[in-house]
Amino acid sequence: MRSLIDIVDFSVEELYGLMDTASDIIAHPERYADACRGKKIATLFFEPSTRTRLSFEAAMLELGGSVIGFSEANSSSAAKGESVADTAKVISCYADIIAMRHPRDGAPFVAAQNASIPVINAGDGGHCHPTQTLADLFTIYREKGRLNDLTVGFCGDLKYGRTVHSLIAALARYTGIRLVLISPKELKLPENIKTEVIAKHGMEYVETSDLEGAMPALDILYMTRIQGERFADKDEFLRLRDTYILTPEKLVTAKQELAILHPLPRVNEISVKVDDDPRACYFKQVSNGKYMRMALILKLLDEAKRNPTRVPLICEDGAKIIRNRMRCSNSRCISMVEQELDQVFKLTEPEKRICRCIYCETKETATEEDLK
Amino acid sequence: MRSLIDIVDFSVEELYGLMDTASDIIAHPERYADACRGKKIATLFFEPSTRTRLSFEAAMLELGGSVIGFSEANSSSAAKGESVADTAKVISCYADIIAMRHPRDGAPFVAAQNASIPVINAGDGGHCHPTQTLADLFTIYREKGRLNDLTVGFCGDLKYGRTVHSLIAALARYTGIRLVLISPKELKLPENIKTEVIAKHGMEYVETSDLEGAMPALDILYMTRIQGERFADKDEFLRLRDTYILTPEKLVTAKQELAILHPLPRVNEISVKVDDDPRACYFKQVSNGKYMRMALILKLLDEAKRNPTRVPLICEDGAKIIRNRMRCSNSRCISMVEQELDQVFKLTEPEKRICRCIYCETKETATEEDLK
Amino acid sequence: MRSLIDIVDFSVEELYGLMDTASDIIAHPERYADACRGKKIATLFFEPSTRTRLSFEAAMLELGGSVIGFSEANSSSAAKGESVADTAKVISCYADIIAMRHPRDGAPFVAAQNASIPVINAGDGGHCHPTQTLADLFTIYREKGRLNDLTVGFCGDLKYGRTVHSLIAALARYTGIRLVLISPKELKLPENIKTEVIAKHGMEYVETSDLEGAMPALDILYMTRIQGERFADKDEFLRLRDTYILTPEKLVTAKQELAILHPLPRVNEISVKVDDDPRACYFKQVSNGKYMRMALILKLLDEAKRNPTRVPLICEDGAKIIRNRMRCSNSRCISMVEQELDQVFKLTEPEKRICRCIYCETKETATEEDLK
Repeated sequence: MRSLIDIVDFSVEELYGLMDTASDIIAHPERYADACRGKKIATLFFEPSTRTRLSFEAAMLELGGSVIGFSEANSSSAAKGESVADTAKVISCYADIIAMRHPRDGAPFVAAQNASIPVINAGDGGHCHPTQTLADLFTIYREKGRLNDLTVGFCGDLKYGRTVHSLIAALARYTGIRLVLISPKELKLPENIKTEVIAKHGMEYVETSDLEGAMPALDILYMTRIQGERFADKDEFLRLRDTYILTPEKLVTAKQELAILHPLPRVNEISVKVDDDPRACYFKQVSNGKYMRMALILKLLDEAKRNPTRVPLICEDGAKIIRNRMRCSNSRCISMVEQELDQVFKLTEPEKRICRCIYCETKETATEEDLK
Repeated sequence: MRSLIDIVDFSVEELYGLMDTASDIIAHPERYADACRGKKIATLFFEPSTRTRLSFEAAMLELGGSVIGFSEANSSSAAKGESVADTAKVISCYADIIAMRHPRDGAPFVAAQNASIPVINAGDGGHCHPTQTLADLFTIYREKGRLNDLTVGFCGDLKYGRTVHSLIAALARYTGIRLVLISPKELKLPENIKTEVIAKHGMEYVETSDLEGAMPALDILYMTRIQGERFADKDEFLRLRDTYILTPEKLVTAKQELAILHPLPRVNEISVKVDDDPRACYFKQVSNGKYMRMALILKLLDEAKRNPTRVPLICEDGAKIIRNRMRCSNSRCISMVEQELDQVFKLTEPEKRICRCIYCETKETATEEDLK
Repeated sequence: MRSLIDIVDFSVEELYGLMDTASDIIAHPERYADACRGKKIATLFFEPSTRTRLSFEAAMLELGGSVIGFSEANSSSAAKGESVADTAKVISCYADIIAMRHPRDGAPFVAAQNASIPVINAGDGGHCHPTQTLADLFTIYREKGRLNDLTVGFCGDLKYGRTVHSLIAALARYTGIRLVLISPKELKLPENIKTEVIAKHGMEYVETSDLEGAMPALDILYMTRIQGERFADKDEFLRLRDTYILTPEKLVTAKQELAILHPLPRVNEISVKVDDDPRACYFKQVSNGKYMRMALILKLLDEAKRNPTRVPLICEDGAKIIRNRMRCSNSRCISMVEQELDQVFKLTEPEKRICRCIYCETKETATEEDLK
């Protein structure tokens, strides 16, 4: 049995497999209309996200299955203090697969360690949102026919944008990807992603604050929202915001084959006037996301059927595990609140004693004492 | 493809067609048990309304289809600022038909202009609630065997009662309808409905504040709730309220064939003691509403299948359209908040330069400049 | 037609019948996969309870039926002041069976008196939660092979624990049950349960505050949560709480065949370290609860089909009924708020003029005048 917590849990081959399945569903939906007859997905949304939740629910229903769940935490036992682990164990009695959205980094990981059914991370705090990345990858693949040799622009909030970070991590495994990172200086891509993802995989990249200047080179433009609350200076925010609003005028110099993506919801960062441009792919992305979730549900249920044993998630790569000797410093990590949860770190860079929290991937430096 | 935004979107013939279908469903439910197999309704309730939502959901389930949706705005992407148009486009990827309840007048109209699937207005602010009117009409038809030659009393809050206004507009298309408008003077039917609906169709009507005096003449009594918050003077409210509470005593002079309707929820405007009277039809009305919604879903899905093109909603009657020259003054109109939405008016009375907002039907007077 | 409001509404034989059905479902789930095809359960949760709600929904889905409902009162018509009786009548138009959770004692009883479909009490205030008791009984039966000749320990909050009171009432009908009541003195079992249930049925019992001392004798250990808000003295609470946390150490002296139950959610009253002990049955209990709810839905739908007439709930045992002469003093009783609801009492101890509110079972003493 497997779960999907982080997009890199799946190999490049597995991702191509999912895309093949999704394409086949689009071509022959009737062949899948009873594929999950008698199966149930539990959509456990500890914070609201209508689009993502309804995408999972539509996916399961189009496979002939059914849905139970909740759409916000105050309808849930969490309001009575139930741990994520217990919720996962309880829901395992009711459903065949879980899709979990949670405000705490690492919560779906804890669920996957305790459930006896597969768990899909539908977004955990600022950490991961792998099914959005599935939608993004599949949209690029369908629009461009390939996932390599592409110039991909990311525009807007590259600092906090979880979907940006995940898609860059996913693209790092393909060849010939050139990144154009377009943002105000306050919202540049974090340094650790540059060193640990981009540099590590030898990706080309440039940084700029000029959307219009970057436009002509792009094969893909991935837009994101700039949130006012990220700025101390509101006037600065208002001035900047408008330079990143995508309008038909700014697309004049763009390639005819450009594909414009956006994880939605959009507020005003893309003008409605762009919607009718054939290069606007953000609503196709919604549809593609549903089909990739259908493919994902099929794959995980199939793997669970063939091998019901839970794969221990933390030991696969042979890294040293440090248990209950250090504490995670990330205040949003699930390990801050979950009952009797071990504090577990992976030693990722032994020479520097650098460790990663297995729940939220926060980096901590171990003492020599910790490593004994 | 068509939508149902306002009851008058459907012709009298179409309404009889829906009632025929609903009657056939009641007689032969098993024939419809798989009619929508594989189809999904999205119930998008931006404000709660359990009865209406569950009626749509039960309707779709009894047709063999399934349901996705949300029951209040804070579980929805609207909380993140998504426009109604974008929500409609996104949901079009997930479902086959939408039922939308929204606090803003005109929101389902905007949804219908942007969705690629049919949209049913399940109540928009103080504007319309056409499926309640379907339930009302069908109940009258089943109880009386006709929709013409009836004396119909409306009692309670005739000023703000959206269901009252809609039912009067619907009844205006049948012959021989006599209206008895029973209300305190503070809650009389608005003048514009008298001039634009009642007078225009040459309906007979009387106004009175005396429920008991009006009773003997009535074939139909449509009760509504009087809400305390409508009154500046609370003592006045309390005094009035009791005179409009329907009790068995007040029914003594009523016809044996009277049919008592109420859109529910009732608070105390009809005594529970009336429930067992065979003339009490308000729970039958609930059941009838479900069957009419089944008929409506069938009709709209069938029309969408035969003609998937969206009918442009604003041009059908040849009235002049004024775009982005005037603003709607209704603070509850969807045009106040929706991103980049055109301000659109229809010139309904050219000689007086009177226009109607196409979203909420608020009346504005254009300048000569606006009309150029 | 019957409903399940209180566990004692069902005879011992009926409970064995439910357990037989549940066992058969576990053995042959495929035989039941279409048992409720075309049927709907309405889950009316006026206060949130994810576990219970999802258990009912999973149960109905595994029987091939479907689900409508709401998960908290502010999505419901109750927010507009609709009575429980009206809600029950409305929902009877939409569904085939109701599962109702309500914050007011007696609300599901009122619903059952007004619905034309069976009603299951899914928890009403501090009063009853009979389907939890079904889960508890079935778990004991499956683990021990019998429901008689057992030493059953109840640990924690025995004063306010609704599930404890219900399970004791249920066990009172079997022979050879010995109760060990383990609690701090502040949270002892209420006197009226000792006199009216335990003494009346001649059950053996001991009271103690010492969990570890009681452990060796137990066949069943039913753990509950101790809530801080029950204590005036917080230090006292913190000191006590830890003595009742179940840990592997405290289980050293326990029988090998002990079965540990807990109604969940657990906060920290059972250490996670106990979960892997084969004696920990609280997650099995979750699963058993779902199967008993399946059996219950089947039974009630079957009875409704064979006899659609509502059984008058208050007259079965011939006790004198007192109507509208006394008022219930329980501020949480549904009779405090429901529109035009008769105040009804049953004269349970004529010689002492002791009556019970039929909604919430609160005891009141009638005057001689009341009884005339």
